[in-house]
Amino acid sequence: MTTAPTPAATGGYPRTDRTTPTRARERVAYDRELVHAILDQEYVCHLGFVRDGRPVVLPTLYARVGERLYVHGSSGSRPLRAVADAGGEGGGRDGGGPGDDAPGLPVCLTVTHVDGLVLARSAFHHSINYRSVVVHGVARQVTDPAERVAALDALVDHAVPGRAADCRSADAKELAATAVVALDLEEVSAKVRSGGPNDDAEDVPLPYWSGVVPVSRAYAAPVPADDLAPGTPLPEYLAAGR
Amino acid sequence: MTTAPTPAATGGYPRTDRTTPTRARERVAYDRELVHAILDQEYVCHLGFVRDGRPVVLPTLYARVGERLYVHGSSGSRPLRAVADAGGEGGGRDGGGPGDDAPGLPVCLTVTHVDGLVLARSAFHHSINYRSVVVHGVARQVTDPAERVAALDALVDHAVPGRAADCRSADAKELAATAVVALDLEEVSAKVRSGGPNDDAEDVPLPYWSGVVPVSRAYAAPVPADDLAPGTPLPEYLAAGR
Repeated sequence: MTTAPTPAATGGYPRTDRTTPTRARERVAYDRELVHAILDQEYVCHLGFVRDGRPVVLPTLYARVGERLYVHGSSGSRPLRAVADAGGEGGGRDGGGPGDDAPGLPVCLTVTHVDGLVLARSAFHHSINYRSVVVHGVARQVTDPAERVAALDALVDHAVPGRAADCRSADAKELAATAVVALDLEEVSAKVRSGGPNDDAEDVPLPYWSGVVPVSRAYAAPVPADDLAPGTPLPEYLAAGR
Repeated sequence: MTTAPTPAATGGYPRTDRTTPTRARERVAYDRELVHAILDQEYVCHLGFVRDGRPVVLPTLYARVGERLYVHGSSGSRPLRAVADAGGEGGGRDGGGPGDDAPGLPVCLTVTHVDGLVLARSAFHHSINYRSVVVHGVARQVTDPAERVAALDALVDHAVPGRAADCRSADAKELAATAVVALDLEEVSAKVRSGGPNDDAEDVPLPYWSGVVPVSRAYAAPVPADDLAPGTPLPEYLAAGR
């Protein structure tokens, strides 16, 4: 198992040209705790990569373990094959790859929470309250068996904490069909917009309602599978909501 | 104002290599009504483009008008400048550009609804119910004044239907500070996963709870701005719940 980069226990992610916006710089942060909190409250990211010179953005599940993110998918799917083809820890499809020096696949992984609709008196100042994290880096295939298993557990637990220990683990055939990809948290930024509308002073007297409509994710009561044995209890990790 | 591509009133979006997945083909659709419905129920997309050969994915608001999507932002922001630099209807920063033949900026715009957490007896069959749309195309700057105004109204109304007519429209200075970008719906696919877990038959007797936790977006009661004049009524388009 390769070691995830040691988090500098103090200090945030280093700023780079890519993680320094040209606008709204006051909304950008590099704080690790904030980044981790945003990442841990969501489980669907949008993963971008370049194929044939063109951008591709696909939604996918992810999990965080320390300073490393994992995504997974069918080993036959095109994006996962792209990582393998680009090389990885254990080399690409040709086998016998060059290890950690392999190039991997450049990606941008973005996670966004929508927290509110911001209605200002002016159309111009309408906005969204949100928290987002953008991770730039190189995705590498995980080939170490123990890390693969730990990553798959993390992926299940990231969406439903406690579930990985309460289901049948992947067998050898399923593991062979699953590609696991790692992306280290090295070049990372968060962006947050919160609070009410920022109307210009001369617009405040205008007769339009202004304020925020709070937005959140809601979980309804779990719906049992049609073939669930009657009497199967709802697990505690779901009874508490999600 | 350039004309958006005429929707083939019948028939879906044409399949291309980019919109044909290698896996889970049964989940992919090219139906216009389905694509429009998915796009119209959301207002935050993840926009991907290539900068210096690397992928960038940013969350941003969008709106649909017929077979055309719009996004907007500060004319000084890096992604919007990238579109301008790549050329557009009215040419890039150098002015006097080549019009509709200008290359524009290749983008991939993705919209995702998360509808449920799918808990199977096996870790392997855990999944997410979702509806997503992926649009590949070339983003072009909108320079026609009437189309820009219509697009900005659509962006406000897409998040809060009815709001564009009930706020102060952008003035000349605000319009000058705003870049509007168009992306036509030409190379488009939807992907949908719904229903319960797909456990293998031999896993059904296992003692684990299985089923779906429904997920949706929730809107709480609107919160007035601190400086809202007392007695300002909540507009009807918000009273009904967003």
